[in-house]
Amino acid sequence: MTAFDGMLSALEPIGRDPGTGGYRRFAWTREDATLREWFAGEAAARGLTVVEDRAGNQWAWDGDPDDRPGVVLGSHLDSVPDGGAFDGPLGVVSAFAALDALRARGHRPSRPIGIVSFGDEEGARFGVACAGSRIITGLLGPDRARALVDGDGVHLAEAYAAAGRDPEELGRDDETLRRIGTFVELHVEQGRALADLDRPVAVASAIRPHGRWRIDLPGEANHAGTTRLEDRHDAMMSAAGVVLAARASALRHAAVATCGKLRVEPNGVNAVPSHVTVWLDARATDADAVRAVVDDMTDIAANLGGTLTEESWSDATRFPHPERMAALLDDAPVLDTGAGHDAGILAAAGIPSAMLFVRNPTGVSHSPAEFAERDDCLAGVHALATVLEELTR
Amino acid sequence: MTAFDGMLSALEPIGRDPGTGGYRRFAWTREDATLREWFAGEAAARGLTVVEDRAGNQWAWDGDPDDRPGVVLGSHLDSVPDGGAFDGPLGVVSAFAALDALRARGHRPSRPIGIVSFGDEEGARFGVACAGSRIITGLLGPDRARALVDGDGVHLAEAYAAAGRDPEELGRDDETLRRIGTFVELHVEQGRALADLDRPVAVASAIRPHGRWRIDLPGEANHAGTTRLEDRHDAMMSAAGVVLAARASALRHAAVATCGKLRVEPNGVNAVPSHVTVWLDARATDADAVRAVVDDMTDIAANLGGTLTEESWSDATRFPHPERMAALLDDAPVLDTGAGHDAGILAAAGIPSAMLFVRNPTGVSHSPAEFAERDDCLAGVHALATVLEELTR
Repeated sequence: MTAFDGMLSALEPIGRDPGTGGYRRFAWTREDATLREWFAGEAAARGLTVVEDRAGNQWAWDGDPDDRPGVVLGSHLDSVPDGGAFDGPLGVVSAFAALDALRARGHRPSRPIGIVSFGDEEGARFGVACAGSRIITGLLGPDRARALVDGDGVHLAEAYAAAGRDPEELGRDDETLRRIGTFVELHVEQGRALADLDRPVAVASAIRPHGRWRIDLPGEANHAGTTRLEDRHDAMMSAAGVVLAARASALRHAAVATCGKLRVEPNGVNAVPSHVTVWLDARATDADAVRAVVDDMTDIAANLGGTLTEESWSDATRFPHPERMAALLDDAPVLDTGAGHDAGILAAAGIPSAMLFVRNPTGVSHSPAEFAERDDCLAGVHALATVLEELTR
Repeated sequence: MTAFDGMLSALEPIGRDPGTGGYRRFAWTREDATLREWFAGEAAARGLTVVEDRAGNQWAWDGDPDDRPGVVLGSHLDSVPDGGAFDGPLGVVSAFAALDALRARGHRPSRPIGIVSFGDEEGARFGVACAGSRIITGLLGPDRARALVDGDGVHLAEAYAAAGRDPEELGRDDETLRRIGTFVELHVEQGRALADLDRPVAVASAIRPHGRWRIDLPGEANHAGTTRLEDRHDAMMSAAGVVLAARASALRHAAVATCGKLRVEPNGVNAVPSHVTVWLDARATDADAVRAVVDDMTDIAANLGGTLTEESWSDATRFPHPERMAALLDDAPVLDTGAGHDAGILAAAGIPSAMLFVRNPTGVSHSPAEFAERDDCLAGVHALATVLEELTR
C-alpha cells in the first residue's frame, strides 16, 4: 500500500495554507490545474486513457466504455476554503489504490473500469456545489453555469476559458453519462457515527435534502458617528437578526441551518452598512422541514425589506440496495448523511450509484482538523476493491 | 465662482464607481496619486509652493511659514468605501476658492496662508482614521504606523514605499507643526442640524469622543450539513449576538455604536465559521458613555471566548472660542459633531483650530447620496474667506 501513501503525500502540499494547514483548492485556479496534472499522471502510470467531459470533469478509463458501460470509482479534488486533506482526495486516491489491488490479485474485469475526479464539487468559488456533476447531468443549465460569478466578479465562463477550455462546450453530456454503468464514491465520514459504532467503514443509504439560498438585506449608507440610532437603516442589524432566526427556525423544524458566508457593503468601520448578503445552507432528514425553514426565512427577509433567492436545491437521494453492499462488507453499518456529493447528483439522474464512508474519529470536516486514521483509510480501499471486484466479476 | 465649479468637476471622475456613483479613494493607491497631482496643479496655478511632510500630507504655501506661522485652510481628498463627493474634497476646494476670493478683493495677508490636504483621513485602507494628522502630531507612532496592514496584507510601510516615499521618514514633524498658526477646516455637515435650523453654515464647538475597537470571536470550523446544532461552536452566532448587543448597549448609555465591518473565516456557504472579526465604532457626547459601551462589549466578547482590542481612541476635543467666529459669520449656529476630523487631531495637539460646516439637506454622509447645494457651498466659501481675511488682517 505504499502507492496509497505516496499519492496522499504528493497531494499534501497542493493549495495548502502554511499558517492554518488548511486547503484552498478552488475551481479553475492554478491549484486546480496542478491537481489535474497529478490525476493525469496517476492515470498514465496505470495505462488509463484520460478524457474530459463537457464540464471539465476528468475520467480515466481502463477498457472502452463506449463498448459497454463501466464501473466508475472516484470523488473530487477541490476543497472548501481552509478545508481538510481528506474530503474529496481520499475518494480519488482510494479509487486508484483499489484498481491497483484488483490488478495485484490478477482479477480480470468483465467490464471497463473508470476513475473520475469531478470538478468544483464544493462550489467554493462559484457558489453552486457539485457544479461538475450538475452540468453533465443537466441539473445546472449551461447558460446559468456560464453566468456564475466568483467573489472577484469573474464569471465561470471566463475562468473556464482562462483555463484553456471552451465555455461553449459546457452542458449536459449524454455520451459521458452512457459510459457510467455504476458509480461508487468513497468519502471520509463527516460525522461521528462510525466512531460511535467502532467500525471503520459504512455504506450510505441516502443523502438528506439540502440547498443554498442567498438573503439580500438592504440598508442605507450613512456616517457611523453622526447618524442617530433612530435615524438608521443598518443592514448589519438585519443580518444579525437573520443569523439568529435561521438557528431558531432550524431548531423548531428539526433541521440544520448555517450562515457561513456573509458580504457587507461598503464594509467600512465608520460607515453604516448599506447592504448585507447572508448565505443560508439548510438541510434535514425531511424535505418539508427544509422548506419550512426556507419559508420562515423568506418571511423574515421580506419583513426586513429584503429578498431570499434559491441558489441550489437537492431533494432527498436514496441509494439503491445499500444492504446488499453492506452484506458484502462484513455487514458494514448503513448510514444516511447531510452532506451533498456527486454520487447523489448521479443517483438523482438515474445512474446506479453508491457511497462508502471511512471513519472520522472527531467527526470534524471542512476544517484543517479533518482526519482519518491510516488503517481506516486502508480498510476503505479494501472495501472499495471488494465492491469493484464484485461489480466487474 | 467658476473656479470652484471647475475644481469640483475635475475631481468628479477620480475613483468613482460607475455602478453606485460612490467613491473609492484610498491611501497610497493610483486614485490617491491622481488626487495628489490635482492638488499640486491647483497650487501651482496659484503660485503656491507645495511640500510634503513626514506623513505625506500635502501643504501649499503662499508666503514663508518658517518666517512666521501661517493660517492654514484645508481638509482631505480620500474617501470611505463607496463614499460621497463632498466629505473631504469640499474643504480643499473651498480653501483654494477662499484664497481666490481674498486675492480678488485685493486683500494683502499679514501672515503666510497655507492650504493642506491630509492623507488617509478616513482610515479606509489601514484602519486608523486621521492617520496623516495623527502621525505628524505623534499620536500615531511611526513603528505602529508602518506596521498597519490593509485587507490584502500590505503593510503601510510597503504602500508608502511603493508610492515613492521613504517609510523611514514617517513620524512626528515638529517643523511642519511650527508652521501652523491656526487651522480652519470646512466640511460638509454629517447630520441634519443646519437643515432643521434653515441655515447654510455653522461653526463647530467640539468633536465628541470616539474610537474604534476590534472584536475577535473564535469558533470551530465544521461541515454545515453533518454537524448537529448542539455540537457546533459557530463564530457567526457570536457575531450576531455582538452586533445586537452593541446596539442595545449604545441605547442604554446614550451613545452611538456601529458594527460596519466584518470578516468571516473561512466564509464558505457550507462551512461553520471558525472565526469572525467584528469592528466596533462607538461615540457619545461624554467619554464615560463610550467607555461604558466598550466595557459592556469587553464582557460580552469574553463571555463568547473572544477578545476586544482598541484600535484608536480620540477624547473629546473642544475648539477654542467658536462664538467669536460665529459672531463674524452673521451669528452662525454653533454645533458639536460625532465625526472625527484632522482639525480635532490638531486641536488635541495644542494647535488653535476651528471648523465650519456646510448644510447637508438629508444629513446623509459616507454614502453616494451625500449632498450639498451649490449655493450653500458658495456660502461656505464666503464664510471661509471671511474667517481667513480676519485671521490675516
